[in-house]
Amino acid sequence: MSQNEVALYKALRNMNYKELEEFAKEIRNYIFDVVYNNNGHLASNLGIVELTIALYRVFDPFEDVIIWDTSHQSYVHKLLTGRWKDFKNIRNTGGISGYTNIYESEADRFGAGHAGTSISVALGYALSDKIKKRKRNIVSIIGDGALACGMALESLNQLNFQDAKVKIILNDNNMSISKSVGTIAQFLNNFRVRKEYTQTKEVLKSSLEDFNIGKDVETILKKMRDALKYSLYESPASLFEDMGIKYYGPVDGHNIKKMQEFMEFVRDYDEKSVLLHVITTKGKGFEETEKAPTKFHGISQKQSPQVSYSKVVGHTLLHLKDYEYLAFTGAMAEGTGLCILQNVVPEKVIDMGITEPSIVTTASALSLGGVLPVVDIYSTFMQRAFDSIIHDAALQSIPILFLLDRAGLVGEDGPTHHGVFDISYTRLIPNVEIWTPINAQDLANMLYTSIIKGISKPRFIRFPRDGENIELQSIMSDLKLVNSEWKYLKNSNSDIYALGVGTISQNVYEALKGYNINIIGVRSVKPLDQFIMEELKEKAKYIFVYEEGSLKGGFNEEIFKLKDKNIFAYGVKDEFISHASREEQLEICDLSIKAIKENFEKKVSVAKLNKE
Amino acid sequence: MSQNEVALYKALRNMNYKELEEFAKEIRNYIFDVVYNNNGHLASNLGIVELTIALYRVFDPFEDVIIWDTSHQSYVHKLLTGRWKDFKNIRNTGGISGYTNIYESEADRFGAGHAGTSISVALGYALSDKIKKRKRNIVSIIGDGALACGMALESLNQLNFQDAKVKIILNDNNMSISKSVGTIAQFLNNFRVRKEYTQTKEVLKSSLEDFNIGKDVETILKKMRDALKYSLYESPASLFEDMGIKYYGPVDGHNIKKMQEFMEFVRDYDEKSVLLHVITTKGKGFEETEKAPTKFHGISQKQSPQVSYSKVVGHTLLHLKDYEYLAFTGAMAEGTGLCILQNVVPEKVIDMGITEPSIVTTASALSLGGVLPVVDIYSTFMQRAFDSIIHDAALQSIPILFLLDRAGLVGEDGPTHHGVFDISYTRLIPNVEIWTPINAQDLANMLYTSIIKGISKPRFIRFPRDGENIELQSIMSDLKLVNSEWKYLKNSNSDIYALGVGTISQNVYEALKGYNINIIGVRSVKPLDQFIMEELKEKAKYIFVYEEGSLKGGFNEEIFKLKDKNIFAYGVKDEFISHASREEQLEICDLSIKAIKENFEKKVSVAKLNKE
Repeated sequence: MSQNEVALYKALRNMNYKELEEFAKEIRNYIFDVVYNNNGHLASNLGIVELTIALYRVFDPFEDVIIWDTSHQSYVHKLLTGRWKDFKNIRNTGGISGYTNIYESEADRFGAGHAGTSISVALGYALSDKIKKRKRNIVSIIGDGALACGMALESLNQLNFQDAKVKIILNDNNMSISKSVGTIAQFLNNFRVRKEYTQTKEVLKSSLEDFNIGKDVETILKKMRDALKYSLYESPASLFEDMGIKYYGPVDGHNIKKMQEFMEFVRDYDEKSVLLHVITTKGKGFEETEKAPTKFHGISQKQSPQVSYSKVVGHTLLHLKDYEYLAFTGAMAEGTGLCILQNVVPEKVIDMGITEPSIVTTASALSLGGVLPVVDIYSTFMQRAFDSIIHDAALQSIPILFLLDRAGLVGEDGPTHHGVFDISYTRLIPNVEIWTPINAQDLANMLYTSIIKGISKPRFIRFPRDGENIELQSIMSDLKLVNSEWKYLKNSNSDIYALGVGTISQNVYEALKGYNINIIGVRSVKPLDQFIMEELKEKAKYIFVYEEGSLKGGFNEEIFKLKDKNIFAYGVKDEFISHASREEQLEICDLSIKAIKENFEKKVSVAKLNKE
Repeated sequence: MSQNEVALYKALRNMNYKELEEFAKEIRNYIFDVVYNNNGHLASNLGIVELTIALYRVFDPFEDVIIWDTSHQSYVHKLLTGRWKDFKNIRNTGGISGYTNIYESEADRFGAGHAGTSISVALGYALSDKIKKRKRNIVSIIGDGALACGMALESLNQLNFQDAKVKIILNDNNMSISKSVGTIAQFLNNFRVRKEYTQTKEVLKSSLEDFNIGKDVETILKKMRDALKYSLYESPASLFEDMGIKYYGPVDGHNIKKMQEFMEFVRDYDEKSVLLHVITTKGKGFEETEKAPTKFHGISQKQSPQVSYSKVVGHTLLHLKDYEYLAFTGAMAEGTGLCILQNVVPEKVIDMGITEPSIVTTASALSLGGVLPVVDIYSTFMQRAFDSIIHDAALQSIPILFLLDRAGLVGEDGPTHHGVFDISYTRLIPNVEIWTPINAQDLANMLYTSIIKGISKPRFIRFPRDGENIELQSIMSDLKLVNSEWKYLKNSNSDIYALGVGTISQNVYEALKGYNINIIGVRSVKPLDQFIMEELKEKAKYIFVYEEGSLKGGFNEEIFKLKDKNIFAYGVKDEFISHASREEQLEICDLSIKAIKENFEKKVSVAKLNKE
């Protein structure tokens, strides 16, 4: 990493506005080229180019503390703080992360991936600076979607009370991932259209157009202060003001000069915490990305399987649209495949934004009201609803169908996004069922069964970020009622058993089908299949367990309770797995076909194997 | 349960205001007598007597849906809906629960115990009513402390957006458990004092004093509407209005007539969700409870041990007050013993209100800022911060000292409050340490060590709701640096090992000290003691494991990985444990001295025991 690169953000200060605009174009093209042809978050980063440039003309990413909420939009920040060349390899194995990462750069003050944490983080830094008697600016850049997270709101409510002076830049593109939901979003939207916005702009224009280096700074600042005061008093954003946060804005998020003026003012405002409302366009700069920002939220050029598991969910739910249920998503109608249902029957899908704990509790009450909730949330994000699952759903044995999408290793998004803990964190909860379909058809069948026959308590169905090369039509025409008994993928008269939990049993089968052993697809972690458990107790001498999830607290620990067996478990060890392709991560966790085979042969002598 | 009792709330409607006030007094005395001489939540229930009476003159607890947030303040509700006689036995084994419970009465629409869930619940019921085409009132009664929870705020933001018409009664006593914190609390407080409050009262008085049955209801309603509108326009509660919630109030929460008028208005208001701001006095009715409501928040007449573990924490932290650290509490400075530190060095304790996820993330940033955070939260409430622990603390290996108070069985509070999952939900997380002190001195030493020597990653120290008969002074004078090696409580040349995790090892020792076996106090669940694990591997034939926590995912599952042993584990089985005394619960979970002894003897033949 060259010194020049690290200092790139400093160079911004020597550019005039025309040069800055040219540079913005260059950045935008670079991001487009790398992301469009590779993978990553495109639209949000295209939308934040000018904002980041203005930000680093006013704040110093190494001296000040800049917190990027969720941090999928931190690409421009990375380019300007020493990672211009490395950016080419973003999200790939060994390359830089797609999110901020404290191990990657001193300018990455806090890692993120889940939304809504930045204001809590800013508060923590502010408290530490007070104790350490440090004076620096603490800035949180947060989107309007993340702002509606409970964590963001509860921390907003703390700032003034804890006497923390934080600068919040609200990057308002009226999209969380899907279109923003909730009243705060509507409320923010009002600001976009009302007349004061124009008025403010005019007032600012007249008082600031003579702004240039060399003029008496005091005079300019005073003018700005007056102008901003005016804008403020004309349009108090009472929500924030009531929370004790000074509000300024809105300002055009693609006008570097205007933003810089506002940001300088905000930087020097020292009375209390302040929020600057910036209006940006997600996907800015390219016609296709501006028109369909959700489509370009995340890009993946991987060869995808024909049908993703998410798609299977969407189509199965659509197929069952005449049954009474309500599907919940947390701003992820696209990612979860619920959009397939939503497009046809919008009233069957409720998007509550990024509010997982509330979603689960709301779903619990819906169920008591007699309507089956289908809560479709990525495994990693469901972690946020852990207490709602225990305290609201399980303790009251409430029927809720939980769909844990992206359960397992997720590839390029890396450790903030892996869904590797869910077997462990649901298995410990009384009164729940954990179903683990072994393939796309099985997933569809389990979903079909749960809705048609109903459920009597919380049921989780977990499946990875992946899919299969199978005709969707074929799945839909083969739908049938199923239970959760485990399935013999290969049955033999051996005392060796290989158990694969859910879809990973496909790899287990591919790796070990040539041996004269028993291969079992584990279709339910809770309850266990008592019949096969009994058989294991009686017949098994060697048991191999494979699960795409944490070994600590995982399914394997149920098997270890069997006495007098040689048990070997493979899965995610007690560590966080870095970003890489999903295939590489499976390899690291001994779950690739190759690794399964090699490790198996190491443990069992070839003679014992009776290779067929 | 007699029919009369169930219909008690109906009788309210035939009483005049003088009779109602007398009845309020009767209720108050009854609650005082039962709770003061037994245990339970006193101050909050004394504060809500008139509110509940007014509520059930206007709403029907069986026809409408009334949701009690947290529900520690639902005693009056229970008395009025069929549990007058049963109330005498509240919170005792076999008696009614201290919280709402869907299995106890149809009027208990949703169980609670953790704060801030009621608005999510109300939303769920509203969504189900829309689908089922039911018409009934959905009412959430929520305190000002709970309102600042992330879940409450994020659901507030959803109501209008999801077109749900919910009635929120804000029971504002300016106390969560300790005094309310956060800007919303201050903001609410403004309403109490400003002049519009008086104005509103006057206007209402003049327009409503002629209110009586028989008059033209339309006219009265119109007058009320005008009056309330006036009050509203004079003092818009913009925070709520911006969230799309109509605001009314404040109204005196001890004036039944006034509240009834407001509630009738709110009941008939059908445009959107509405919030009625009621000002109550926690502990109302008795001089001692009004003066010190925090002291009378929860009552326990149990014979307490000399020193509770919470007190040990408070005094040890106070002892270390000159070291650089910051202690965090979620509205529980009293319960956690942090008040002991707070009283002397207030700036070392940060109360962020009931916002556990934010607290953990804020603490993570504080730590990166160079200051050691001590996060002292009950085990059951820490469940809410599960994702913050993974995503913010552990993934970044951030030094945070977590104190898990009330880890284990908690007695009368019952299943919403047990801290039985924490070993399971922390053990699955990479990069953390889980320390389990075996007695009060050990707890103090571990805390002392962690602060003096510092830590390198998240460290949990877990201890139950309990204590010991030991002089505090003696603990403080014996403070010393310790590691987390397991401790032989009894060492013998036997191949039988009994392992007790943390303080439960005291019961194990008492039960089994007479036998010629090895008894080990497990002082750390993560990492394991490699030396003793090695010994177990080599020497042990029988291993007995005892832990005050869920067996699923618990410490015992580490032991089951040892080969060729006879392993028996005792602890909380895969079920929720009802309210009862802690001693009874320990018995149910086979963790009492008696149960430990009996089960041990069942498994090991007397001959084998070589009883000393």
